[in-house]
Amino acid sequence: MIADLRALEPPQLKDFTNSLVEQVVAAVTDKIPHLESSLAVAELTVALHYVLNTPEDVLVWDVGHQAYVHKALTGRMNELANMRKPGGISGFLKRDESPYDFFGAGHASTSISALAGVCLADQIAKKTRRRVAVIGDGSLTGGQSFEALNHLGTLGADVLVIINDNEGSIDPTVGALHNEQSYGTYMQSLGWHYTFLEQGNDVRALVDALQQVLAQPGPQTLHIKTKRPDLSPPKSYKPGTTFQWWAAETMEAVLASNADLQILSPAMFAGSGFAPLRERFSDRLIDTGINEAHTVTTAAGIAAAGGRPWVHIYSTFLQRAFDQIIHDIAIQQLPVVFLVDRAGLVGADGPTHHGVFDGDFLMNIPGATVWSPRNGNELQGMLLEAVAQPLDGPLFIRYPKARTEGGIPTDFHAYEWLQKSGGSSLWISTGALSDLMKKGENHLHLAQNWPFFDDFGAILSDFDEIHVFEESTGLGGLAGAVKALMAELDHPGKCITHKLPMEFIEHGPRLQLLREHGFNNFL
Amino acid sequence: MIADLRALEPPQLKDFTNSLVEQVVAAVTDKIPHLESSLAVAELTVALHYVLNTPEDVLVWDVGHQAYVHKALTGRMNELANMRKPGGISGFLKRDESPYDFFGAGHASTSISALAGVCLADQIAKKTRRRVAVIGDGSLTGGQSFEALNHLGTLGADVLVIINDNEGSIDPTVGALHNEQSYGTYMQSLGWHYTFLEQGNDVRALVDALQQVLAQPGPQTLHIKTKRPDLSPPKSYKPGTTFQWWAAETMEAVLASNADLQILSPAMFAGSGFAPLRERFSDRLIDTGINEAHTVTTAAGIAAAGGRPWVHIYSTFLQRAFDQIIHDIAIQQLPVVFLVDRAGLVGADGPTHHGVFDGDFLMNIPGATVWSPRNGNELQGMLLEAVAQPLDGPLFIRYPKARTEGGIPTDFHAYEWLQKSGGSSLWISTGALSDLMKKGENHLHLAQNWPFFDDFGAILSDFDEIHVFEESTGLGGLAGAVKALMAELDHPGKCITHKLPMEFIEHGPRLQLLREHGFNNFL
Repeated sequence: MIADLRALEPPQLKDFTNSLVEQVVAAVTDKIPHLESSLAVAELTVALHYVLNTPEDVLVWDVGHQAYVHKALTGRMNELANMRKPGGISGFLKRDESPYDFFGAGHASTSISALAGVCLADQIAKKTRRRVAVIGDGSLTGGQSFEALNHLGTLGADVLVIINDNEGSIDPTVGALHNEQSYGTYMQSLGWHYTFLEQGNDVRALVDALQQVLAQPGPQTLHIKTKRPDLSPPKSYKPGTTFQWWAAETMEAVLASNADLQILSPAMFAGSGFAPLRERFSDRLIDTGINEAHTVTTAAGIAAAGGRPWVHIYSTFLQRAFDQIIHDIAIQQLPVVFLVDRAGLVGADGPTHHGVFDGDFLMNIPGATVWSPRNGNELQGMLLEAVAQPLDGPLFIRYPKARTEGGIPTDFHAYEWLQKSGGSSLWISTGALSDLMKKGENHLHLAQNWPFFDDFGAILSDFDEIHVFEESTGLGGLAGAVKALMAELDHPGKCITHKLPMEFIEHGPRLQLLREHGFNNFL
Repeated sequence: MIADLRALEPPQLKDFTNSLVEQVVAAVTDKIPHLESSLAVAELTVALHYVLNTPEDVLVWDVGHQAYVHKALTGRMNELANMRKPGGISGFLKRDESPYDFFGAGHASTSISALAGVCLADQIAKKTRRRVAVIGDGSLTGGQSFEALNHLGTLGADVLVIINDNEGSIDPTVGALHNEQSYGTYMQSLGWHYTFLEQGNDVRALVDALQQVLAQPGPQTLHIKTKRPDLSPPKSYKPGTTFQWWAAETMEAVLASNADLQILSPAMFAGSGFAPLRERFSDRLIDTGINEAHTVTTAAGIAAAGGRPWVHIYSTFLQRAFDQIIHDIAIQQLPVVFLVDRAGLVGADGPTHHGVFDGDFLMNIPGATVWSPRNGNELQGMLLEAVAQPLDGPLFIRYPKARTEGGIPTDFHAYEWLQKSGGSSLWISTGALSDLMKKGENHLHLAQNWPFFDDFGAILSDFDEIHVFEESTGLGGLAGAVKALMAELDHPGKCITHKLPMEFIEHGPRLQLLREHGFNNFL
């Protein structure tokens, strides 16, 4: 299809694009917001592959929310219908899927760094080729993009960064750069030549502009305005059916009765179901931009100033603030509550998004408290308890992207017996897995993963064989903590752990993935 | 002393500052580079505490390398002589040390985020006070500072950020902002008013400028030029005595014989002993700036483009690139070698800098390989092996800030018997601890922490009691992996782990800290 495209004359490009878009729209049935992002750059995608000699020339897409037209054009039109489904192609760029996917992504703001790497490698290899990254105005709020611009601007390389400005990522873009539309002075201050094109959805204008900027030496930016079509209603969670909805429902009451409580989110209020809350409490739900590090240190600053900060963040993005949790919150023993959304397997977004690491890394942070509710009722109880409790460090409330019931907040207890029927074996589970699982003959749900409650050791001593179940990967975590306690107590029994394997798990429905990765006999 | 200062008339400030500086210089005997950074802002420190009503007004120092005069002025003059020594005060800002230390630090680029938090808390509390952060031009290369400026610029708060421009952090500042001295347009593009003062070491000019900018509403920046006195020779490691020196020595040969190999560092070539190498291989030792996330993704980009990237980074700063290691390198199975310097207790820098987390978090990343040499000879052998081995993911070579011998590179082996004398107990240790420790009756050094070598299970099965020693904290790591393997093998014996406790460890000499935190009977 690329060969067909490159055989065209410029006047034919518009029809080609329209036809391509029609086919893509007909094929894609899942994740319509990403389809919208992709259609916003349909003309850009065509223009880039027309002007560049991909895959010899390098094209890096930031995040990859906008990859569908690119995928169609690079040999994967027939795969689009199965995209994000088990066995189908990924919704994001992926190196092992196509040579045209030069650099994979799923998290924001990495593309310009990757491009810097290409320039450095090419300098050593004395390789001349065209090198382009496409980054959205939302992703530009992530500080890594600044780091990359500031560094790459000094390398003397011929390189092009395209700012795809559609005024939003998943949430509308925030920040001074966006508000003041000062991309030109910003880019120039970092040593980049700057060109602006209003007609970002005009394929011939794009071809002309690309040919022009690519002919110029040094670091070039092309800032284009694009329009995202509106194919889907704003993301919302069906009332009363998910952890996300029950979190928002409870936080509405919590915010109403705690006038000092502020919730920060790195550009994910809509994704996490808090968009309606944001309308009601616009002064206290603060979208900081796509910048997890800043978000977490800002929360520390609020706490240091005597405020009451909460942070709402996805598990997979929390990985980006690991240092700030340690350095700014935990060492200083500052009270910050984290709502860790999408802790566990996330389903169709796949390996870049599975929240499978925080179960281990949070428990290793001195002074951290970690809770994982088994259903909506317990989540509600935890949120109410978190407001009431004095804290001297971070508290993490982790919940998966999953269906659950709620409406009757349970009083917070560190643990709960789900079954107690004698015998020598004990099953310990945590989070939504506790409700999803068959029950062991003795089955303890650990709502508070860490630190352990006082009598936990005494309970363990009643059993010979202890099984630990958790929806995360790694060598420590809850299982590691149980083993450490057993060793400390000189417990003579066995501990058998059931965790996700230490590998990157592909996309697929959460339950199916759990079955395929170690939990089949227990669900 | 603050009260004395505030009673002065402006003409008296210069003498006051000079006298203060004299006392500080006489008192401080350790970490002279930080004394230099502090003296560069002696006038600024005096001017700030003169104009502001600290600690009611908020003053946040970025990193805290420049805190010595601030400490002297805020009641800690007599403590300076014991600073960074066991029982003495910290070399950095620390909240529990003084109410004047509003926000602690040790890592760069967090101060403006903290200030954003203060503004948000004050908005809710309807509190009016002056809020100031001081950040160096080096710290400004860290993307979190951009995230914070871009966000805080939109909050409508009265706030001041002072850019302390002395053209360097530990290494000379890099990046386009510095090269083009475009701080003014940069700050303005992010919605900040900008004022420049050349005379950053003139206390009266500073007082005037501060009073002027603090009287203006909205987000203000004051960019000042300061001069760092030259009290110490450039940092260098005594030849032949440290892991750092042997790393540089070996890499010189490796670079000479591998023309495609590039080493990236987030502004720490000097600190890690690679400054001399940088002179010889200036095109292939690339200082990216203080930006760990960008550095790691750039390495991924080099690898994707077919180059051979190595990253030289401190363990504590690697925490800032945890997500990029997962998302950009490990998922894509890209070959990147990491020299992880200061893995383990770092000594006088204390809790913000101890490299005690990477031992656990690296092993949890699917596809990661982790090596920890016991001495300089083994480190040399590992570096040579890392060049020779084909890789399909990240390889981490972790070594502490410690003395060691070298000069006779040992061939790389995944493990080594340090002692084998029969009996039923086995000690397993890794890293420099292996050489530091007494030896168990059977003592295995694990050079390759992860993945385990093939026969490791068979070795374990010969023993009843297995002790694991590692200089890191957390619930997983090497100890967690040994326990997991024992469980998999249905090993009937006991595993006893010896790790650092799960708490933040204060500063002090490394050996003393190891003795005080669990290893006393083994050293």
